[in-house]
Order: sequence, then structure tokens, then C-alpha cells
Amino acid sequence: MASTSAQYTLTIRVELPHQPGTLGKVTTAIGSAGGTIGAVDLVDVTGEITIRDISVAAEDRAHWDRITSAIEQVDGVRVVETTDRTFQMHQGGKIEIRNKHAVRTRDDLSMAYTPGVARVCQAIHDDPDRAFVYTIKRNTVAVVSDGTAVLGMGDIGPRAAMPVMEGKAMLFKEFAGVDAFPICLDTKDPDEIVQAVKAIAPSFGGINLEDISAPRCFEIEDRLRAELDIPVFHDDQHGTAVVVLAALMNAAKLIEKELSTMKVLVVGLGAAGIAVTKMLLAAGITDVIGCDSQGAVSTTRSDYEDGSMPPIKRWFAEATNPEKRTGAPADVIDDCDLFIGLSGARVLPAEALARMAKDPIVFAMANPDPEVSPEEAAPYARVMATGRSDYPNQINNVLSFPGIFRGALDVRARDITEGMKLVAAEAIASIVKPEELAECYIIPSVFNRDVAPAVADAVAREARETGNAAAGNEHGFTAAEVERIHSV
Amino acid sequence: MASTSAQYTLTIRVELPHQPGTLGKVTTAIGSAGGTIGAVDLVDVTGEITIRDISVAAEDRAHWDRITSAIEQVDGVRVVETTDRTFQMHQGGKIEIRNKHAVRTRDDLSMAYTPGVARVCQAIHDDPDRAFVYTIKRNTVAVVSDGTAVLGMGDIGPRAAMPVMEGKAMLFKEFAGVDAFPICLDTKDPDEIVQAVKAIAPSFGGINLEDISAPRCFEIEDRLRAELDIPVFHDDQHGTAVVVLAALMNAAKLIEKELSTMKVLVVGLGAAGIAVTKMLLAAGITDVIGCDSQGAVSTTRSDYEDGSMPPIKRWFAEATNPEKRTGAPADVIDDCDLFIGLSGARVLPAEALARMAKDPIVFAMANPDPEVSPEEAAPYARVMATGRSDYPNQINNVLSFPGIFRGALDVRARDITEGMKLVAAEAIASIVKPEELAECYIIPSVFNRDVAPAVADAVAREARETGNAAAGNEHGFTAAEVERIHSV
Repeated sequence: MASTSAQYTLTIRVELPHQPGTLGKVTTAIGSAGGTIGAVDLVDVTGEITIRDISVAAEDRAHWDRITSAIEQVDGVRVVETTDRTFQMHQGGKIEIRNKHAVRTRDDLSMAYTPGVARVCQAIHDDPDRAFVYTIKRNTVAVVSDGTAVLGMGDIGPRAAMPVMEGKAMLFKEFAGVDAFPICLDTKDPDEIVQAVKAIAPSFGGINLEDISAPRCFEIEDRLRAELDIPVFHDDQHGTAVVVLAALMNAAKLIEKELSTMKVLVVGLGAAGIAVTKMLLAAGITDVIGCDSQGAVSTTRSDYEDGSMPPIKRWFAEATNPEKRTGAPADVIDDCDLFIGLSGARVLPAEALARMAKDPIVFAMANPDPEVSPEEAAPYARVMATGRSDYPNQINNVLSFPGIFRGALDVRARDITEGMKLVAAEAIASIVKPEELAECYIIPSVFNRDVAPAVADAVAREARETGNAAAGNEHGFTAAEVERIHSV
Repeated sequence: MASTSAQYTLTIRVELPHQPGTLGKVTTAIGSAGGTIGAVDLVDVTGEITIRDISVAAEDRAHWDRITSAIEQVDGVRVVETTDRTFQMHQGGKIEIRNKHAVRTRDDLSMAYTPGVARVCQAIHDDPDRAFVYTIKRNTVAVVSDGTAVLGMGDIGPRAAMPVMEGKAMLFKEFAGVDAFPICLDTKDPDEIVQAVKAIAPSFGGINLEDISAPRCFEIEDRLRAELDIPVFHDDQHGTAVVVLAALMNAAKLIEKELSTMKVLVVGLGAAGIAVTKMLLAAGITDVIGCDSQGAVSTTRSDYEDGSMPPIKRWFAEATNPEKRTGAPADVIDDCDLFIGLSGARVLPAEALARMAKDPIVFAMANPDPEVSPEEAAPYARVMATGRSDYPNQINNVLSFPGIFRGALDVRARDITEGMKLVAAEAIASIVKPEELAECYIIPSVFNRDVAPAVADAVAREARETGNAAAGNEHGFTAAEVERIHSV
């Protein structure tokens, strides 16, 4: 039987007659129909009836009908209405603007707005760096998408991408006190995207690019990093890479292998696959093989009729696959220490894992259906991680981007460098104590509140030590402010 | 003696010895130095001393030194530190992002973010109008500026403009529950501005243009209105025009003149002067004369050597000044019923007002120094209004833009039409009851909480009745939601 999911939670308003045992019959009916009961709230009681709201997690939408039908089978009970909790939570959007100060008197107005605001404007005009002290720029990140590669849905457009970007903004605030605002762009043209982001940059202290399809995302990020003086970070690439590296660091420690000796197969060479590979190389791994839908990439392959390859694949071919292996993932997996899946469901027969090196590590991160399921991989893999919350070792970007931007904003970093990403990965890995490290615990929970501050501290320190912190103490946050922000 | 202003409030931390009467001596010293004392807070008490924070409004920054020196003259009293309240209020920016729901459990995450969010994205992809139901678009306005015409300071650039735009966002929230986000653009090129605003439009339900210099503002607004399906409103133009018309409606009622019979002199033909003139014409006034820095505009004037004029001035010359008068403001003021100043200090000798028609109305709105001061105008003007909060009849945009956008968002208006602006002016005017109407009370206070809901209702009704409400009930706000928003 399929399992129920909170995303399919239905709030069912039921009218029950005042007869002993009725609620018991209703909850039994829900359970028999396969629903998982959450909160049971009392809405109203009159002389003859009780109205209750019952939250029930279901398997999918079709399951809702079976559950409500089961409830209506109970004598005298009526379903008054049902509410889809997920849609309800999105109604009117999930974030809002809040004023930090009230504007209730003329004195408030004359300080926050005219005429007093003019003095503050003048001070920033005299030294534009003061924007990092007296405006939201100091703590605000734009979450920018063109809606071309949203979750597993692909190019769904900017309006439909908004709920994801709002959700991202929520995570920024919840985990790191960063004010993030979703900007979904009505253009897919890289030139126009670069121009629009550059145009709006004065309002922001950082740019988080999100769900922009490859290979456009590489060019867009490279150009924005070169042209802006605030950090630009494509989370699908680097956020994923940082968490993968963190998980790998702990897995390697567990099985007692050195990263530099490892042979790695990466399947799926979109934004995440490319960035993960770059990060593995930066971390000292020399033997990586990457497969896209045409199989292993190597310098012997010609993607176009004239024998050439797209620039990013050309780079990849030259940087990886020293043995120039060819073939499908199952053909090139022999002797690999680590399999990283960032592609789609079931790209590999589980039996192929048997040909990996001793103590195989398998990160199968396709969502919701991994490249190989943990159940199928169990006989072969020593360490298994996925992108899902319902298995151990969830590799989730939430562990990285809030802390990385928190640290970058704290010291007003101009850029998020390879060094900052490496120390972020180390900080995430370090949350799992040596004595806790186990096959089923190589990466902390996304709700572990120690992660973001640890990542922020490491990132901020690295930025300062490498001269990438633009303003040091003068325009950065004070220690007390950082403390306050971290305690949100 | 100059008067003190809240914008120059200093919080002075003082250390006082435990001797009876010391606080009295300190407050007396502050008063003698001309400071206005606000809050007096107790910070700390030890065996021998008391630490207090005293808020003191001063005339200007130079005045602060005189006040702190006076305090230090009191025996045993020491000034520990001083804080500029206005700058303090701006530290870190004045607005922040708030999550409407907590993200504390896996169930929260699976509804607000992945995997549940995908269902909501899909629903919007299937019908993009649903963005107005399930995203922040429904209640969010971009406050967009290029920083070229900020308050009286002119072109101070996008970073320095941010405190004003954040202040505007605060007023949107405070008075009308609208979530507004400041977007300051790093370009002055109209094409790039139009392109950037079009690009970011999917995130927003409306665009409030702000502090963009004329004549670029006219072209930018016209093009955005034509190309976007959400309302675009240049507040410096139309917000001002609406409030001027509201004040005029009540002034005319008071002196018992019909608008259509009035002769009006407008001095200052920037964004506001042009828009006010258009609105007066739309309201039925036929005899308007406009003066810019070269004097009265008429079809007989040639601004360029070849005899031509800039397009907006050409339009103005053809639409106004039927008698083709020429000369400076003081030359063309004869027999005018109404003087509207939207220019700079003292463009007119007060004596010229003597040549106006019976019961002259004078709106001298230059800030902080009006075209003619209320004191000087007093012998001549029957009704006087300014842009300042320290005289009666303050004409301030805060009375218009929050309610106008509230109404437009409530019914998902595609545009803010002339009709919607006219009813907004009527709604503002109607807040002053006939029995309250007086020379010193033709326009409600900016803090009158009845104004924004009245404006919103009128604007929403007009939009619905003229078929400008895009989505009617299906994607608009429900009555209960509107109620909740209005009660923020």
C-alpha cells in the first residue's frame, strides 16, 4: 500500500450527532480507508450536533474521495466541506512585508520618511557603501528565476515558479534570518536576464539564482559574478555541490577512504551534476566519470556532426574521465567508490552496484524517484543517501544556502568563492560528531538548527581571511547584531 | 527662533549623580538650550549614579552640540553617548520579510516547499491567472525608482534612493495592508528601465513608479501601462494630482464656486505639474495657465531655435492657456481663482496674490519652503494649503496611493484609469464632512484611518463598473479577506 503524505493533507469539516462513540467511528473509518489523522479541532457545538475539523494525510488526491466516502458511511455523520491544506497554505502567497517600526505619528513619519529620510539619503549619496548600513541591502537577497527548470517540472514559466521561490524565501528567513524576495523574470533570454538582475541589484545584498535551465545558467551566473559587486550564487549548482561534498566527507571518514583516492561516477550532467563534479575536483578527487543521456563523456566523443561538443561538455570531457571509458552508466561503474545520481528514476539496474569497489557509497538524488531505490541498493551499498526526507541521509540544499548567504552578508562578502563553499561543506559535515557517524547518519537533519550558524561562521571567517569581506567591521554587522540574527 | 523638528531627534545617554533635583536641572538645561524633550527612559541605577536616555528634538545638527554642552554644565552630570534617532531608525533598513507560516516540521516543509509546492505550481501553470490567488502577486506592489528625482535632492542614484522607497513601502503597509517592495534601478535609460520592470512583473500585482525625473517619467509610464497587464502608477504625477483635486473640490465647495468656471495658474511643470493640469482638465476646468522656468507656456512660445517645443510642452501649450497670455507667474496671475505651486521657494511675490479673483485659493506645495509662505499669503488668500505638516491643509500623497493600490489589487484592476483617480479624489474630499468644512480644514489628516478604505472602496467600485476589474470574484479577494486587509 502506498504511504500517506503531508502534501496531500485534507482538512475535513464534519458534522457529528451527539451520540457516544461517533467520533470513534469516524476516526476508525478514516483509518480503515488508509488516511493518517493529524489534528482534530472542535469548531462548534450546538444542542444536537458537533462540528469538527479533522486533518487527514492521504496518498494522493484520488484517495480523498475514498476517505470522505468512508466518513459518510457512519450513521448521522455529514462531511460539510473539505480544504486542501497545501493550497490553503499558499493562498495569497506565503511571505509578506513587515515594517520594523510603526508609522503612527507625525514624528515617526518625519524620521522614517520626509523630511528626515533626506539626511539618510544624502549620507548614502556621499558614501554609497553606507547602503549596507542604512538600507535593506544589508540583509536582503533576491531569489531570481526564469521558471525554466522548476523542480521536476521543467519550463513552467515565471508565474508558476513563484510558489517555489516564495518557499525558498521562507527557508532563508526561517533558518538564517535572511530577508529574501522572489523575483521571477518574464524572459528566457540570457542577455535580458543579466541586464534585469544588474538593474535591480542596488536593492539587494546578494543574488540567489534558482531553477534556471542548463547550459544558460552557467553563462548567466558567470556574467553576473563578473559584473556585480555582491555575491551571486546559483543554488541548484553550488548549494547541491556543497551538501554532496559534506555527505561525502563524512561517508569517506566512515569507510576510511581518502577522497583523493576515490573514483566517482556522476550520472546526470545538468547544473547540479556539473557543479558537483567541479566541487569534487576542487576537493582533490582526480578520477571522475560523468554520464549524460548519451553515456560517458570523454574527449573521444563527438556530440555534433562536425566532431565538436557544447563548451561545457568540452570542458567536462577534458577535466574528467582520464581513462576515456565509454558507455552507459552500468558500463562504466566498475571499481567506482562513489555513485552520484542527479538525473532521473532508475537509470541503472541495482545489480550494477555489485561491480563497484569495496564499501560502495551511493548518492541517488533524483526526486521523488531515485536513480536506484534504497531497498534495491541495500544488498550492495554500504552508505546510501537520497534527496528524500523519508529515508536516512537526506541530501538537501536547505543545509547550505541559508548559512552561506548569512555568512556572506555578515561580512559583506563580494563573492562566494570555492574556498567559502569548501568550508561550508566542512561545517555541515562537522555537525555530525565522530561518535555519531554511522551508515545511516552521514549528514545532519534539515531541521538541525546548529547547521546554518556553523556554516555562516565558517563562510564569514574564510571571506575575511581571504580578503573577500568588502567592508570589515565598518559596514559589516556587529557581533551583537550577528548574535541577534542567528537567534531568530 | 527656529523650531525643533523630530527628524533631528537625538537620544542622549546621561549619567546623573544621586542628588535630589539633578534630573530637573538637566531638563531645565535642555529647555534653556532650545531642545524639546520627548521620552525620558531609565537605563540603569547603581549605588551612586543613574543612567538615563533622554530623547531631545533639535533644530538641526549644529543645535545638538549646544544642547549636550548645556547638559554637561550641570554639576556632576556626564553625557555618555548620543544617538541620531533618524539614522538609528534606518539601520539595517526599515522593512523585512515575514513568513506567514512557520516551517518547523517536515510536514510544514512538504506543504510550503517540496514536494507539495509542485501541485500549486502546476495549478498556476495550467491557469496563470491563479498566480493572483496562490502567490504574493495578489497583494504585492513594486516601488520602482531610478533615483533621478528624489525629494528635493535630484539625481542621487539608486542606492541613495532606497531609504525613500523603503519608507514608501512602510506607508503602503501601514495605511492599506499592501506589501510593497523597493526596487531601485541601476540605470537611467528609459529602454532599460522599461525592460527591467517588464522582466520582474510576474512577481508583482502593481507597479508604483517613484522619483523618476521628467520628461523620462512620462514615456516610461506610458510604455509600461501599454505593455503590462497590471496597474502602473507614477505616484509623483497621479498621487499628487488626486490629492490636489480632492483639496480643490472641498475648497470650491467652501467658497461656492463651480470648478468649471475657475481659472487656474499652475507654476512648475515637472511630473506633478503636468499631471495636476491633466487632472484639472479631466475634472472640467477649461482655463489653466502653466508656467515653467521660462514663464507661461503657450502656442506662441518657441523653446527651440527652430520654433519647436518638447512634445510634452507642445501638448501643454495646445491644451491650456486659451488666451495665450505670456510672462512670469506674477504677470499671468490676474483674475485666477486658484494658484497651484509645484516648483520651488518664493517664485512669486506675495503681493501678486492681491490680483487674483475674489476668495483666492492658494496651494503652495514646494517642500520644505513653499512658493509663498502661509504667513505672507494670509492677507490675500482665503484658502491656503501646503505640502507641510506644520500648517493646516497638508496636501500629501499618503492620502492617495495606499488606498488607490488597495482598491486596484482588491479587484485585480488591469489599470488605474482617469475615472479611478477621479473617484479617489472624491473619496478623499468626502472624508471632510460638510459641517466640518472650513478654510483651515479642506483635506483630511494623513493619519486619518478612514481615508485609505474609502479610497479603496471607491476605486474598486469604479474598476468593476467600468469593466476594468480583470477577474471579478473568482480571482479577486473575498469580502472577508478585504475586511481583514482593511483592518490591519
